[in-house]
Amino acid sequence: MPIDLFDCVSPLDYRYYANNDKLVQLLGPYVSERGRLAAELAVEAAVVRVLARRGVCSQAIADEIDAATARVKLEDVTQEDARIHHSTRALVNCLRAEVSDEAKPFVHLMLTSFDVKDTAAAWRFKQATEKAIVPTLLDLEDTLIKLALREKDTLQMGRTHGQHAVPITFGFALASYVSRLGGRIEAVRDAGAALRGKISGGVGAHNAQCLFVDDPIELEREVLAELGLQPSISSTQIAEAEPLVDFVHALVSTLGVLANLADDMRHLQRTEISEVAEEFTAEQVGSSTMPHKRNPWNFENIKSFWKAFMPRMVTVYLDQISEHQRDLSNSASARFIPEVIVALVATARRMNRIMGKLIADPAQMKRILDLSEGMSAAEPAYILLAAYGHPDAHEASRKLTLEAQATGKPFPEVFFAAEDLQPYIAQFTDKQKDLVRHVESYTGIASEKTERICELWRGRLWW
Amino acid sequence: MPIDLFDCVSPLDYRYYANNDKLVQLLGPYVSERGRLAAELAVEAAVVRVLARRGVCSQAIADEIDAATARVKLEDVTQEDARIHHSTRALVNCLRAEVSDEAKPFVHLMLTSFDVKDTAAAWRFKQATEKAIVPTLLDLEDTLIKLALREKDTLQMGRTHGQHAVPITFGFALASYVSRLGGRIEAVRDAGAALRGKISGGVGAHNAQCLFVDDPIELEREVLAELGLQPSISSTQIAEAEPLVDFVHALVSTLGVLANLADDMRHLQRTEISEVAEEFTAEQVGSSTMPHKRNPWNFENIKSFWKAFMPRMVTVYLDQISEHQRDLSNSASARFIPEVIVALVATARRMNRIMGKLIADPAQMKRILDLSEGMSAAEPAYILLAAYGHPDAHEASRKLTLEAQATGKPFPEVFFAAEDLQPYIAQFTDKQKDLVRHVESYTGIASEKTERICELWRGRLWW
Amino acid sequence: MPIDLFDCVSPLDYRYYANNDKLVQLLGPYVSERGRLAAELAVEAAVVRVLARRGVCSQAIADEIDAATARVKLEDVTQEDARIHHSTRALVNCLRAEVSDEAKPFVHLMLTSFDVKDTAAAWRFKQATEKAIVPTLLDLEDTLIKLALREKDTLQMGRTHGQHAVPITFGFALASYVSRLGGRIEAVRDAGAALRGKISGGVGAHNAQCLFVDDPIELEREVLAELGLQPSISSTQIAEAEPLVDFVHALVSTLGVLANLADDMRHLQRTEISEVAEEFTAEQVGSSTMPHKRNPWNFENIKSFWKAFMPRMVTVYLDQISEHQRDLSNSASARFIPEVIVALVATARRMNRIMGKLIADPAQMKRILDLSEGMSAAEPAYILLAAYGHPDAHEASRKLTLEAQATGKPFPEVFFAAEDLQPYIAQFTDKQKDLVRHVESYTGIASEKTERICELWRGRLWW
Amino acid sequence: MPIDLFDCVSPLDYRYYANNDKLVQLLGPYVSERGRLAAELAVEAAVVRVLARRGVCSQAIADEIDAATARVKLEDVTQEDARIHHSTRALVNCLRAEVSDEAKPFVHLMLTSFDVKDTAAAWRFKQATEKAIVPTLLDLEDTLIKLALREKDTLQMGRTHGQHAVPITFGFALASYVSRLGGRIEAVRDAGAALRGKISGGVGAHNAQCLFVDDPIELEREVLAELGLQPSISSTQIAEAEPLVDFVHALVSTLGVLANLADDMRHLQRTEISEVAEEFTAEQVGSSTMPHKRNPWNFENIKSFWKAFMPRMVTVYLDQISEHQRDLSNSASARFIPEVIVALVATARRMNRIMGKLIADPAQMKRILDLSEGMSAAEPAYILLAAYGHPDAHEASRKLTLEAQATGKPFPEVFFAAEDLQPYIAQFTDKQKDLVRHVESYTGIASEKTERICELWRGRLWW
Repeated sequence: MPIDLFDCVSPLDYRYYANNDKLVQLLGPYVSERGRLAAELAVEAAVVRVLARRGVCSQAIADEIDAATARVKLEDVTQEDARIHHSTRALVNCLRAEVSDEAKPFVHLMLTSFDVKDTAAAWRFKQATEKAIVPTLLDLEDTLIKLALREKDTLQMGRTHGQHAVPITFGFALASYVSRLGGRIEAVRDAGAALRGKISGGVGAHNAQCLFVDDPIELEREVLAELGLQPSISSTQIAEAEPLVDFVHALVSTLGVLANLADDMRHLQRTEISEVAEEFTAEQVGSSTMPHKRNPWNFENIKSFWKAFMPRMVTVYLDQISEHQRDLSNSASARFIPEVIVALVATARRMNRIMGKLIADPAQMKRILDLSEGMSAAEPAYILLAAYGHPDAHEASRKLTLEAQATGKPFPEVFFAAEDLQPYIAQFTDKQKDLVRHVESYTGIASEKTERICELWRGRLWW
Repeated sequence: MPIDLFDCVSPLDYRYYANNDKLVQLLGPYVSERGRLAAELAVEAAVVRVLARRGVCSQAIADEIDAATARVKLEDVTQEDARIHHSTRALVNCLRAEVSDEAKPFVHLMLTSFDVKDTAAAWRFKQATEKAIVPTLLDLEDTLIKLALREKDTLQMGRTHGQHAVPITFGFALASYVSRLGGRIEAVRDAGAALRGKISGGVGAHNAQCLFVDDPIELEREVLAELGLQPSISSTQIAEAEPLVDFVHALVSTLGVLANLADDMRHLQRTEISEVAEEFTAEQVGSSTMPHKRNPWNFENIKSFWKAFMPRMVTVYLDQISEHQRDLSNSASARFIPEVIVALVATARRMNRIMGKLIADPAQMKRILDLSEGMSAAEPAYILLAAYGHPDAHEASRKLTLEAQATGKPFPEVFFAAEDLQPYIAQFTDKQKDLVRHVESYTGIASEKTERICELWRGRLWW
Repeated sequence: MPIDLFDCVSPLDYRYYANNDKLVQLLGPYVSERGRLAAELAVEAAVVRVLARRGVCSQAIADEIDAATARVKLEDVTQEDARIHHSTRALVNCLRAEVSDEAKPFVHLMLTSFDVKDTAAAWRFKQATEKAIVPTLLDLEDTLIKLALREKDTLQMGRTHGQHAVPITFGFALASYVSRLGGRIEAVRDAGAALRGKISGGVGAHNAQCLFVDDPIELEREVLAELGLQPSISSTQIAEAEPLVDFVHALVSTLGVLANLADDMRHLQRTEISEVAEEFTAEQVGSSTMPHKRNPWNFENIKSFWKAFMPRMVTVYLDQISEHQRDLSNSASARFIPEVIVALVATARRMNRIMGKLIADPAQMKRILDLSEGMSAAEPAYILLAAYGHPDAHEASRKLTLEAQATGKPFPEVFFAAEDLQPYIAQFTDKQKDLVRHVESYTGIASEKTERICELWRGRLWW
Repeated sequence: MPIDLFDCVSPLDYRYYANNDKLVQLLGPYVSERGRLAAELAVEAAVVRVLARRGVCSQAIADEIDAATARVKLEDVTQEDARIHHSTRALVNCLRAEVSDEAKPFVHLMLTSFDVKDTAAAWRFKQATEKAIVPTLLDLEDTLIKLALREKDTLQMGRTHGQHAVPITFGFALASYVSRLGGRIEAVRDAGAALRGKISGGVGAHNAQCLFVDDPIELEREVLAELGLQPSISSTQIAEAEPLVDFVHALVSTLGVLANLADDMRHLQRTEISEVAEEFTAEQVGSSTMPHKRNPWNFENIKSFWKAFMPRMVTVYLDQISEHQRDLSNSASARFIPEVIVALVATARRMNRIMGKLIADPAQMKRILDLSEGMSAAEPAYILLAAYGHPDAHEASRKLTLEAQATGKPFPEVFFAAEDLQPYIAQFTDKQKDLVRHVESYTGIASEKTERICELWRGRLWW
């Protein structure tokens, strides 16, 4: 059913997804309406294959139905749905119309709509996880690891509260995202794998199946095994809600990590900081009125997607609640879940693209570090004073920072001139004195830890 | 740009909106991507008309540009956007391509993107409010008023905590929704009318305009007046966020009223209650496996839309925050706001359709009321006892309810047989005794209040 | 009932509110458990006064009950509640225990719990609005107005996307918050005034009242008038939900404005920017390990309160839904609403305190502005080129910014040296040339608009 | 610092937690302000023990500091905090005041505040999980298992959409909650165990530690091992956010399962259904005006807690974002996390109490099942028709349900009388005919599956 993209109302369709061939190719089978139909037909076919194996129907009938699934058209299902107001029965009717009278009774036999829908959804999201979400996130992780390692020795000022704290390296700052994203990739992977189907009938007690088989739990397992799924331990008309809740939580919290990274990169591009830059093409326009603008719009877009999609989690929590053997009040809301998958994959791909071309400026990072004129040395100064026996070292050091600020002198100068501290300073080794004097060497194990983190995640995620 | 509806990912597009001709006709100009372009071109044209009036450019140039807006194609804008990564400059370039070299400089002159975007958005949402949202809600309100008045004397048991309380009428129960929806219609109408545009340049200080005019605040007022809008009192690159926040709050809280009504109607359709029914067509299917099912699926769908869209409010609150003269982190998220409009209008139309055909069953309501065998009379009994001087009337009445429950006797029987109460009962008038005996007349002013509420809202909303 | 503050679990109690004498004094009557009791007793007394006026009971009895309300102890109510599991009946029993047998029947006569609770809550929140919330916000507004006016001519670089845009003044940046906060003060004031009580009995149909009076709607109006309230237009066991929903929305969206201001102030304190500073006392410690740190912790705290309390709005939306004549599933959740009031007032007071002492550094603002070496002049340059007939002025100017960036030359220098632009530049007036050369004068009407905004809000809020 | 409970503003403090001795005893060490201090002192002591082991200070000094932690008073810390506005430095100063000058330098040596705070929080929440949350949830799980097994054969009508579907047993309905809660217990246990501490200094690069040791990563591991914790793989000033995000998600989604169970129990107590009842004490009052009311207020309270606390998850997602090596904007908001623990434990205890005394009424369940007069048999009828070759069995059966409804006859009667179906019915076995006639035996494997589910979870959770 053709429509014009510009008549769509969802930005995903007209702007971020449906007009993006690569995304459609990557995600279409799992998130589009077309994909939904295909998945539900796959479930119908899996059931009938198992029925044949068990002798409930002949193999010929199973083959006939299986083959017929390929001929069902979404247009027809939609039209039938409009007539009878029941989307699964509509699909069943259309499938039945494609098979012989002998085969008709075995279409959807013993099944309730949500045997098909919940199982198909679990299958789609599990496939999306394996085929699209995790690979996309791994691509990004790989980019981040390379970048972190490349910049592991690039001196940068560490910032807490937006204030200069003590030095780190830029690679170390990125390593934190390598690790957090790594953790989320595992969470997404596990949550995707934990999605479960159900073939237990209208209220979950396998009522109808007992008309034909003695071991309906085994039957359920066989059908789901056809699709690479495990059964929900318990079910009513629907599978247990929590695996899906955990899955969307994993997606949403992954978006959160990307949003945090985006925020950091945005701020490092502030005119006053300019430590990094998004690549800007020669033809790109930053502002319709201010020709000089180079805006971090990709990072802003990533933050924006998080703002748009994180609150969707509330919907998923609301859908945890379904009365008795289920109410249908999750019918519309659950249809929006694939949008969260699209949001995450589109965002991760964008992040990967811009981080892959991120421009870091070590010279500027050094200039920025020098801005605070050794003030960071107040930390090692205090700690060394304490270690050499000063009873109130933090306070002593703190007062010197006020003096440095008031006089405009660099902290090390003030420190080494402080008369009352001479007995302690005299005990400092040369290396310790150097460290207070040249705080840029006070980076701890930033470089080494960057390596360890990258190595650890490479091992955990790729092996 | 044609696509297949089934390749879309948003349920609004493939299922609830873009495939629904009436909704598209009603809302298209305000919520679709096509509508956005048209609105933004209308702003560009309004500016140039004012520039001509002021002599900044000639009237001929203004007319040329105005006429050219009709020729700009979304396809071209999209393509240009892909090249330069700036959606407003893309639109400007396409509009400039349609005019003479003389006119070119006056396209978008003195404007920043968000002069156009924010103003166009305010215009679209204000129009949507007047032309689509409020009329749709008024249709529903009219249906509810008629239904409430029709059922104002239909005896129904009042329920609190899901327990029988004391009697009301079905119309009275509906009147509460007449009033709550009435209040929300006013809230939506006011919030829509309070949306504001801005023509104040890149940081809100009218910097560029000062190059040409002495009274930029007046200029802003004139441009916006062309579009029936008022200016945001202050602005940065963007208008003040709060009017839009209030607007979405009004929409979302209206959805909440509909969801509550839907919940009530769902529960009144429980098999054990069956006081009302959604109309069910002869061909409609309730369950793919249980042929006897008549499910309140429309009401469930309404509840489901509320679950899907209420949490969007969190996004809007997040977008209240924009750094300094603005950051662009609301760029993607704000594009989703029209979806909330679609959700509300689609839901209200559905509600109107099913409430218009709602089947109420007075006989069943009476049977249900009789279920509790006069237990509700414990309330008037207690109050009359108290009024006639019983020092502990509530406790006395409460104990009789336990006795009635234990013995299975109707409460009135137990009450009139209670020896220690005879001195008080003796003082009851005949009417008061009757009322305890026949609690169905204990409906207070349910009918009268229904009328008053309906009258009040008819007056407030239609005059 | 004494407990130790450190055994509390709520940070409001042990850290932000209950240990803060001024806040307790300001808000206690409206937000504490003690305040709730007092308000509910006031409702009981108001009812009995009206009953006496109407002759249902004697004036002496009304006076007796009124006087007795002062003697009811929260400890006793709590104990009785633990016995009978009904908090309003517990209060009624304790009040009855304080009066004569003749008066007992008239305590709580014709009332249901939520006549008392909803009315008392409306009264408390309305009072809190008038006596505490609005005055606190007005104090802050006054501080912001003074600050904006003081700094109205202080040159500052305007920033969009964190990038230098074009110049404004610091006062102008603040004026935007003057206006947004002003709008929220009106919203809070209106929403507080729109809160409504209800005296309509167990299901809203005034069933019990009809036993005694002919005009229960008038009775309801009289009782509520005693408390300065108006009745909910419709009610079930409870008042219409929406006025309270609007009220909390007003509070939460006000917090959003404060959070945005806090974010701006945080970022202006970044070491690299340092345009403003929170006052820091001589004894204050910024970090337990980094003695040099001066963190914007108050602004961070304000942002943090917004993060903690904005999502509470979701709870309020959930509580919009109450089945039939009500279910009690808002019982616990609604008790948390006063916390939002506390959060807003505490935050506004903190904001007022720090903005009142905010240190702005005009010299640093100028240094920061100079950082971008006239790049902002690309905007007026482009617009003037366009106005003087350049057919592609934006693109011409944009390319010069790339050249300036590549060569490290200031933009004005590059601009005036551009050969192909000479025909246009020749037409510039001296003033226009100056403006491109010295972009610090390109502030539009920043100063004047600051004045107008401050004046407007002073007029709207204080008159 | 004593205060009066009634001056508190948090319902947790004045109503649900701080006045509940058992809860305080169970949770106090993990959730109260007092508990926080104790945990942070424990971290300080752990560090100094490791320093002694490594020879950085003497064992005597470590012992002295360790012993001194017991003497630090919250009152003093609070007072010092008010002076210097830094809660960790305040604690450090108070601890230093308790030790000799020799020991002073080793208090908090090399540590940043959040080494202490994040580690202490991880320790508290992990302890709370092991000692309070999981045991409480296991108690409830045990109660549910016993109840499910007791009622595994109690016939009950299954309901979907609030409509009678096909029969199950009450135990089977409960088994679904046994399984869902079981899954959440594992999720909470795992998330609690995955919480991690950090001892890596002000920006996470172990800068200060490198002044003293060569292997700061090993040092971190040793300190955390003292507390039974593992280190965050990466850290900045703070540990990675995600383990805490996952933990609160586990708590909140567990609340969701309880809310769903509460909803089901509420609805089964509707007057018209009355299949179960909350125990009601002889003295309990249901309504202040309606003495006959027995309200499901405990279940309503549980739903209400979910509404109050589920949205807190949004705060936790917001706190995922912290700029650069951290901003402090989670400072206040993170203090509220223990409230979620309190909410879950209080709710689970309440649920356990009422489910332990839940009254189920098998006779009423049978009466309710009979209400729909065999309509459920339409499902097996359709399926058997299909199996015996009817080409359009669902439609045939569906039409009979309309006939049954129209004529008021029981479905089985209509079915067996249908002439066109006789060829198929003739093929039914006696058992199959019986099943259509007496649909109460059409419960599938409800009883057996109940047993399997209970057994599975008993095995997984207790072994």
